[in-house]
Amino acid sequence: MPPMTETPTAAVMIIGNEILSGRTPDANLAYIAQKLSGIGVKLCEARVVPDIEADIIKTVNELRARYTYVFTTGGIGPTHDDITAASIARAFDVKLIENKEARARLLAYYTEPNINPARLRMALTPENAALIDNPISAAPGFRVENVYVLAGVPNIMQAMMDNIAASLKHGPAIHSIAISGAVAESTIADELAAIAKCWAETDIGSYPWFRQGQYGTSFVVRGTDKEAVNKAADDIFSLLEKRTAKPVIESKS
Amino acid sequence: MPPMTETPTAAVMIIGNEILSGRTPDANLAYIAQKLSGIGVKLCEARVVPDIEADIIKTVNELRARYTYVFTTGGIGPTHDDITAASIARAFDVKLIENKEARARLLAYYTEPNINPARLRMALTPENAALIDNPISAAPGFRVENVYVLAGVPNIMQAMMDNIAASLKHGPAIHSIAISGAVAESTIADELAAIAKCWAETDIGSYPWFRQGQYGTSFVVRGTDKEAVNKAADDIFSLLEKRTAKPVIESKS
Repeated sequence: MPPMTETPTAAVMIIGNEILSGRTPDANLAYIAQKLSGIGVKLCEARVVPDIEADIIKTVNELRARYTYVFTTGGIGPTHDDITAASIARAFDVKLIENKEARARLLAYYTEPNINPARLRMALTPENAALIDNPISAAPGFRVENVYVLAGVPNIMQAMMDNIAASLKHGPAIHSIAISGAVAESTIADELAAIAKCWAETDIGSYPWFRQGQYGTSFVVRGTDKEAVNKAADDIFSLLEKRTAKPVIESKS
Repeated sequence: MPPMTETPTAAVMIIGNEILSGRTPDANLAYIAQKLSGIGVKLCEARVVPDIEADIIKTVNELRARYTYVFTTGGIGPTHDDITAASIARAFDVKLIENKEARARLLAYYTEPNINPARLRMALTPENAALIDNPISAAPGFRVENVYVLAGVPNIMQAMMDNIAASLKHGPAIHSIAISGAVAESTIADELAAIAKCWAETDIGSYPWFRQGQYGTSFVVRGTDKEAVNKAADDIFSLLEKRTAKPVIESKS
């Protein structure tokens, strides 16, 4: 799909009590964030909500009105705590139906006698949902309008996300340069603020690190204007050289 | 502090462009979630917001009205992209001031000639904020009413969180039993739903896993009613035995 002149926006909604109880660390947000960044879609916020229908409905309705895309993870398995499909149907005020194509895929994957009513629950989708392929374990995700409903299991979620990325509107490519220097961020904060002001069309972040007994800071310049990103990065590089902070280009994309 | 009879609630607000751009995976939510779970505070939602003042203000105002506690991470360093303190001051409609005690701590830690205006920016807090100790690098977090503003660097955030945990209202202890079995979750979904219905005062989650070529499911029962948690766990254990799924108690707390 050709890049748009405007940057599409997105939100992620992570559904699951296990994330909020601390039992399971989320493993999906970083993957989705990187994927979207790579195709020029701006991830504007993320939310983690519990397995409570009212919370899911309220949150998805807020987010889908505000952003080009919403991606949800979790809650589309076969058990009683998997309430995402029903909640999304109610959010859109449409019926929850047994999706024929989803049922056919589950029957082909599990075959008799392994198919059972719980597994067939995974064929339930909101009416008129478009399926999202699951090449790993058949049970599909689905899309309703601008809301993409993905699995919570990381490798399945990743396969689904990779699959749909090509069909999303791409924004102008985001260029990014990361520079690392042996400097405490506070000692160059004023000059860095001046550079950020000068190249206001870029987004400049500063991230202190401590590793192997040394400290330093990584500076990340991001933006759609490649020339401005390059120039801001040059200015930061020069500043670090002037401070004998041994600057190194960590990454460039 | 003695346990309350009502469960206190909480939200986490993670502040930082680097999380949304995919550059840095969040490393703080899981720690805070576990800490709160351990003292009986119910984490009801989490949000990731960018370094944009209006977003921070809107989100913190929503969350602090809704929950007993709000914990924020990130954006309290010395550089231009650290805007949390100023944003929180505006959210509460109070002045951003140089906190004398915070300034004294920074001067004691850095000493001349290492102190500079950027480092002293870390002494800025909303008026009447209470400081949160930073035993690692001096620059404190702070609290305004029910909002706790913590560092984004994981080891500093953890030290701050450990520090304040004792001062939070504790809810009734949450009991938790995790049982693992060599069973596909879909094959016992109906019986599990019946157990969940029978012990409705507990929260029962079901999490499929694949490891070392084997598949299985972990079942987690959580709740404040210890007897109900035990009985629900017993029922799940018996169900797994009946299915020769070799149940194992993974954890109990």
